Amino acid sequence: MSRPSNHQLTLNLFIYPGGHHEAAWRHPSSDAHRLLDITYYQELARQAEAAKLDAVFLADGPSLPENVRYASRFRLEPITLLTGVATATERIGLIATASTTYLDPYNLARLFASLDHISRGRAGWNIVTTGAPQAAANFGLDEHPVHADRYARAREFLEAVTALWDSWEDDALVIDQASGIFADTSKIHRIDHAGELLRVAGPLNVPRSPQGRPVYVQAGSSKDGRAFAAAHAEAIFTAHQTLGDARDFYADIKARVKGEGRDPDQVRVLPGISPFIGSTETEALELQEEFDALIQPEYSLQQLHQLLGVDLRGFDLDGPFPVGVLPTTGDRQESSRFNLVADIVRREAPTIRQLLRRLAGARGHWVTAGAPEQIADRIEEWFTGGAADGFNVMPPYLPGGFDAFTDHVVPILRERGLFRTEYEGSTLREHYGLQRPPSRFGATIRRAENRW
Amino acid sequence: MSRPSNHQLTLNLFIYPGGHHEAAWRHPSSDAHRLLDITYYQELARQAEAAKLDAVFLADGPSLPENVRYASRFRLEPITLLTGVATATERIGLIATASTTYLDPYNLARLFASLDHISRGRAGWNIVTTGAPQAAANFGLDEHPVHADRYARAREFLEAVTALWDSWEDDALVIDQASGIFADTSKIHRIDHAGELLRVAGPLNVPRSPQGRPVYVQAGSSKDGRAFAAAHAEAIFTAHQTLGDARDFYADIKARVKGEGRDPDQVRVLPGISPFIGSTETEALELQEEFDALIQPEYSLQQLHQLLGVDLRGFDLDGPFPVGVLPTTGDRQESSRFNLVADIVRREAPTIRQLLRRLAGARGHWVTAGAPEQIADRIEEWFTGGAADGFNVMPPYLPGGFDAFTDHVVPILRERGLFRTEYEGSTLREHYGLQRPPSRFGATIRRAENRW
Repeated sequence: MSRPSNHQLTLNLFIYPGGHHEAAWRHPSSDAHRLLDITYYQELARQAEAAKLDAVFLADGPSLPENVRYASRFRLEPITLLTGVATATERIGLIATASTTYLDPYNLARLFASLDHISRGRAGWNIVTTGAPQAAANFGLDEHPVHADRYARAREFLEAVTALWDSWEDDALVIDQASGIFADTSKIHRIDHAGELLRVAGPLNVPRSPQGRPVYVQAGSSKDGRAFAAAHAEAIFTAHQTLGDARDFYADIKARVKGEGRDPDQVRVLPGISPFIGSTETEALELQEEFDALIQPEYSLQQLHQLLGVDLRGFDLDGPFPVGVLPTTGDRQESSRFNLVADIVRREAPTIRQLLRRLAGARGHWVTAGAPEQIADRIEEWFTGGAADGFNVMPPYLPGGFDAFTDHVVPILRERGLFRTEYEGSTLREHYGLQRPPSRFGATIRRAENRW
Repeated sequence: MSRPSNHQLTLNLFIYPGGHHEAAWRHPSSDAHRLLDITYYQELARQAEAAKLDAVFLADGPSLPENVRYASRFRLEPITLLTGVATATERIGLIATASTTYLDPYNLARLFASLDHISRGRAGWNIVTTGAPQAAANFGLDEHPVHADRYARAREFLEAVTALWDSWEDDALVIDQASGIFADTSKIHRIDHAGELLRVAGPLNVPRSPQGRPVYVQAGSSKDGRAFAAAHAEAIFTAHQTLGDARDFYADIKARVKGEGRDPDQVRVLPGISPFIGSTETEALELQEEFDALIQPEYSLQQLHQLLGVDLRGFDLDGPFPVGVLPTTGDRQESSRFNLVADIVRREAPTIRQLLRRLAGARGHWVTAGAPEQIADRIEEWFTGGAADGFNVMPPYLPGGFDAFTDHVVPILRERGLFRTEYEGSTLREHYGLQRPPSRFGATIRRAENRW
């Protein structure tokens, strides 16, 4: 397996159904009527594959936000959606978000093992604990578990599913017609996970998949999130508004990874970037203005409510953001996205409307407008400046905003030697330069007590 | 939507990874090395579609049977697998088994809604409560819930997921770029299910799918199973060894359906048939013998153990089946498959080895060997004799056993006017002649209290 040169960017396409700008679906160029059509996603993934991107990525959450009234907020289930994409592509990685709070380890392990088999080794799992409190009521809970409890379950959950994915050794499947041995059951193991929160016996009922297990992706930048990422993540999605913040995060997370005894090169740090691209900077800014003009404050205020826990309906949109309403204690403080927005408010003292526009592009991710050379410059600056191993590319509108990126920005990155011209491998691990993890039950450390 | 003529058979292909005969994978014609390869399943489904069959069907269970040592018993997760098949086919229905005991309603509702969208209306759900007690330990339970408790949960589960699939009215998705209304939230509803066992608030985060909801398929023939099927099922898979038993079951279930105030024609009763097909009956019987010769008693005894709850290892295989070991009380009595096997034992007084062979073909389903005309005759006899609306075709080996069926039996059924020459519709409901269910929240009965 090749390790990507440190001079090679990692680039994912983060597909937000109509594009990341909250009003993207209202733009005449939008394919909003195709958001339930699998061919829409297949086409985007094929375009990403033609541009030799590493992966496509889908977010998720098991509840319906109320502001679906004003924008595309429904969600096809990402593992099924990406399975439908897998069979229409060959090389592109497929990263699905799934919640450790609202799924069972055994079911989740099966779903991802199946996607990894069906895609021949291209599955990634974006591990989330689910931020939206309304999810709880869909699963019979009175209260959404607090941040610390969600992370406690996430840690145990990851332990259990990792063991499930190890439960078949690579060579357990024998299929020897003559002897009649289908599987060597001495190489299939119970996991007997019995923790504080979860009990899972195993083994999994799916043989070990091409990548051993999906690539572990993580996106929380809270204290708990960073600790979790340092211990487990192989790719980290993160949101930063400035090069300085991104660089601080990058240094911190790589040091934490090292502190866990892991190789920092085995963790790709990938900030989000949502680029408006025009043939000139002026054109790009005009394009951004076209989208910002379509914003609906009702929607944006509901988004802000969800993000900050404060309802600003009734406030004067053109008055200053009332800093005093921000909670200063409680669970919300644990959220990295809350803190990012609170920082913007404190740093820039915007009006409410200015803040809504600031967040409309990509919910707190880095939104930037420019000509292709400028976008490439900014990407290169973050990449060579110790702030990123690559990016989660978040086109503000689709498919047009992604066309502009693949047609005009990727070629420049390639000319500069920053991005691959061909895939070298065929699995997501190979694209990311990650080692394939051995099964813990493998020959060198076979444990008799887990014989099945 | 067309209603199928009562003179038209319904035919599904039930794909058991290597074929239904337990030793199929050992036969030289087997594709056993391709069982983790999605193209294997895509090819089978395309073949079923070329023959104009109604659907492909996959069984499932969330645990690994120990006898995977001797035969193909692992399972890719069926909803993902069938999503990978959906994108390679156009018309064939896609029926996935999923457990009401070991999944959450919200997650299951999303998975099937996604499959129904991705396949443009071809999803079916085979509703099971999971028979294998070892599943419990994979989900943190001390004990597998008893039959009656599993059915109690199944009933409530079905109520909740049906409401979730109704939670978006058909015209809730507006996507009006000019007004900025993406969804008419007055047509999206909380379900507020609060039963004895489950609480689910809703709404689902996926718009109503092409079929409204997946086709409800049910396969238990126990007392609880029949009552459940009569109330809810739109297709019933059932196992019978004789025309008489099948006819009794058919009459009973249709009467129960009527008793529930439902139209008996809106329920397809589909026994399993596992046909060995040769150019003559002798050739077919020789073929069956070829497979039976590959049986491994270790495997078959474990199967029997799972089915009957009795371990016969150590008994003389050529001695009479020890009827006295069969439990006469307890949960096992509730299982229709247990009773079917117990009946064979009492009726035929076989040796253990004879019983193992009897069950090796299709785990208690009807195994029959003959020339194509004979197989067609038997199918016609059951169909016209009031024992079946069609069949779940269970090829003893794959792909060869299915080739024989599509190449030689289907044309005869077609000549006799018993089976379609072309699809008339494009959804599974249309193939089965089932009505598309309206949302309970639709215009005529809109309930203000569920406004969201």
